[in-house]
Amino acid sequence: MTDAHKEFMDVFPVVAEELLAHLRSLNIPQNAIEWFERSMRHNVLGGKMNRGLTVAETLRILKRGQSLTEEEIFKANLLGWCIEWLQAFFLVSDDIMDNSKTRRGQPCWYRVDGVNMVAINDAFILESAIYFFLKKHFKKDEYYVDLIELFHETTYQTELGQLLDLITAPEDDVDLSKFSIQKHSFIVIYKTAYYSFYLPVALAMHMAGVKDEAAFKQAESILLPLGEYFQVQDDYLDCYGNPALIGKIGTDIEDNKCSWLINQALAKATPEQRKVLDENYGRRDEANVIAVKEVFTEINVEGLFKAYEEDSYTRLSALIAKVDHPLLSQDVFTTFMKRIYKRTK
Amino acid sequence: MTDAHKEFMDVFPVVAEELLAHLRSLNIPQNAIEWFERSMRHNVLGGKMNRGLTVAETLRILKRGQSLTEEEIFKANLLGWCIEWLQAFFLVSDDIMDNSKTRRGQPCWYRVDGVNMVAINDAFILESAIYFFLKKHFKKDEYYVDLIELFHETTYQTELGQLLDLITAPEDDVDLSKFSIQKHSFIVIYKTAYYSFYLPVALAMHMAGVKDEAAFKQAESILLPLGEYFQVQDDYLDCYGNPALIGKIGTDIEDNKCSWLINQALAKATPEQRKVLDENYGRRDEANVIAVKEVFTEINVEGLFKAYEEDSYTRLSALIAKVDHPLLSQDVFTTFMKRIYKRTK
Ligand SMILES: [Mg+2]
Ligand SMILES: [Mg+2]
Ligand SMILES: [Mg+2]
Ligand SMILES: [Mg+2]
Ligand SMILES: [Mg+2]
Ligand SMILES: [Mg+2]
Repeated sequence: MTDAHKEFMDVFPVVAEELLAHLRSLNIPQNAIEWFERSMRHNVLGGKMNRGLTVAETLRILKRGQSLTEEEIFKANLLGWCIEWLQAFFLVSDDIMDNSKTRRGQPCWYRVDGVNMVAINDAFILESAIYFFLKKHFKKDEYYVDLIELFHETTYQTELGQLLDLITAPEDDVDLSKFSIQKHSFIVIYKTAYYSFYLPVALAMHMAGVKDEAAFKQAESILLPLGEYFQVQDDYLDCYGNPALIGKIGTDIEDNKCSWLINQALAKATPEQRKVLDENYGRRDEANVIAVKEVFTEINVEGLFKAYEEDSYTRLSALIAKVDHPLLSQDVFTTFMKRIYKRTK
Repeated sequence: MTDAHKEFMDVFPVVAEELLAHLRSLNIPQNAIEWFERSMRHNVLGGKMNRGLTVAETLRILKRGQSLTEEEIFKANLLGWCIEWLQAFFLVSDDIMDNSKTRRGQPCWYRVDGVNMVAINDAFILESAIYFFLKKHFKKDEYYVDLIELFHETTYQTELGQLLDLITAPEDDVDLSKFSIQKHSFIVIYKTAYYSFYLPVALAMHMAGVKDEAAFKQAESILLPLGEYFQVQDDYLDCYGNPALIGKIGTDIEDNKCSWLINQALAKATPEQRKVLDENYGRRDEANVIAVKEVFTEINVEGLFKAYEEDSYTRLSALIAKVDHPLLSQDVFTTFMKRIYKRTK
């Protein structure tokens, strides 16, 4: 574990205890406190924590080598944890909506014995914790309202992306004519890029005292396409990645996902190929999946991805090279880029 | 429809259009906009709107006859609508968690054809609308942060009440030893009283410029017991009310609800009566319900309620008579009291 990682992890027990102490002060019965704690540990912990770690990392870059105070490190990491709590809120509910079985190598929360639909309310509680933390630790900061509004807006954006995803690709009603590259782009930018890429950087910018709206716009103009590229990789790896590396066996084809691959295939398919896709996408049988993958091979969707990856690298590097706002630094973005370019997991 | 009611209803189309215009500006595909609008109309409209109407009503009282400007009326009613949106968020998810069939005379949203678990995300979107409205209409007001924090805290309180309710009285695991009068009190205060009674008054107080924490505490000290009394009536009417008046046939006994009646009965039951309750509460058969109601009759739970009602009236009237904060008015509370004392619906 790096120092930065350790500093981040050390914040969890402190803030988890703040929540629990508050509950105890309300005299809420003990069984509810125990439930709350179990939900929090099950759902907030266990991920890769990349989003959470990015806040302090970005703040360090923005402060240009000036060392951070202990308080700044704590607060940046707490904002990182707020993203992890936000993600927990999204994932608990996403798993119910997607009828998923496992998450991070354990059963989804709603599938844990005795939980079931109570998980919906547990998701709400995970979201509420964010604003409890912000009030407790940032109320006196002049950027307090900016943080709250940023979390609200990011939450709303993610929900809108989720909505379009859910109604475009319902598992029980396969209709490929609903898919399009434009919808795919809207879904991934709203459902993933805002909260995973823009949010951690924007939080660090607020802590660094950035006020100029143009700086936020410039950051967003790189981080959203970067997040879109990341999600296209995710779609690619689901089908062509090494399950040992990505930690799961992809099921986007079976799940009728509006993924980048199927949209590329649909754009290029002959009427015969389209028929095969219509008849086999979003179905559970091995034979259906093989038929879809054959069309992908015929259309050379893998090759299209490789070209997209090269093009994205060129395009994003050019965008980064033009970053000139005095309160930003190209390093913020190259750090992301290095971490994800040609990733295999 | 009274003038106040009409003024309130006239705000809905204006603010609904604000949400839709914002969505259109994001270029979110049309099918998502239509879904969003359908969810909003199904879930926000159709209730009695008492909570929503209370904000402007309270503001008028606090302004002591001074007539409100058109802008003040609009903003007070918008805050009222924010409560209705908050309630929609709670009810959509509560119906899923309770496995309910109908709400306000129509199918629950998650049971509408094609909706299903997408309703969870729709509930989130209903919640997000609140903060969209607050930012759009109150950002320049010095009490903007107070409004946001009040909505956050009330939401969290309601979620904690919902949590205790869900784990105390799960439908599929009847265990009356989990019930207690203390838990009942916590559940109803957190799940109902904060958002239905305290929230509308506190919102009006913020608009009226009240800053003194003591005034809010004094209002809360009456509104929470008032809300508790209201919910005890609700529990009573579920069993002993006239279905033609309350608009539904109560099923609290079948649903294993931790209601005031069962808690009174448990507190007074002989071992034999307790056995009957254990064996019959929370079960679907007519015979089970009759057996429970017989024990209620033996214990004279109705009489206990009548005594509680008288006692509540005396106790709450005394509390109201002591309201002396210069920024409050006893009328705020007597209005509530008159509306609910000995209500039959
Ligand atoms: Mg999912
Ligand atoms: Mg999903
Ligand atoms: Mg994926
Ligand atoms: Mg219910
Ligand atoms: Mg319920
Ligand atoms: Mg009831």
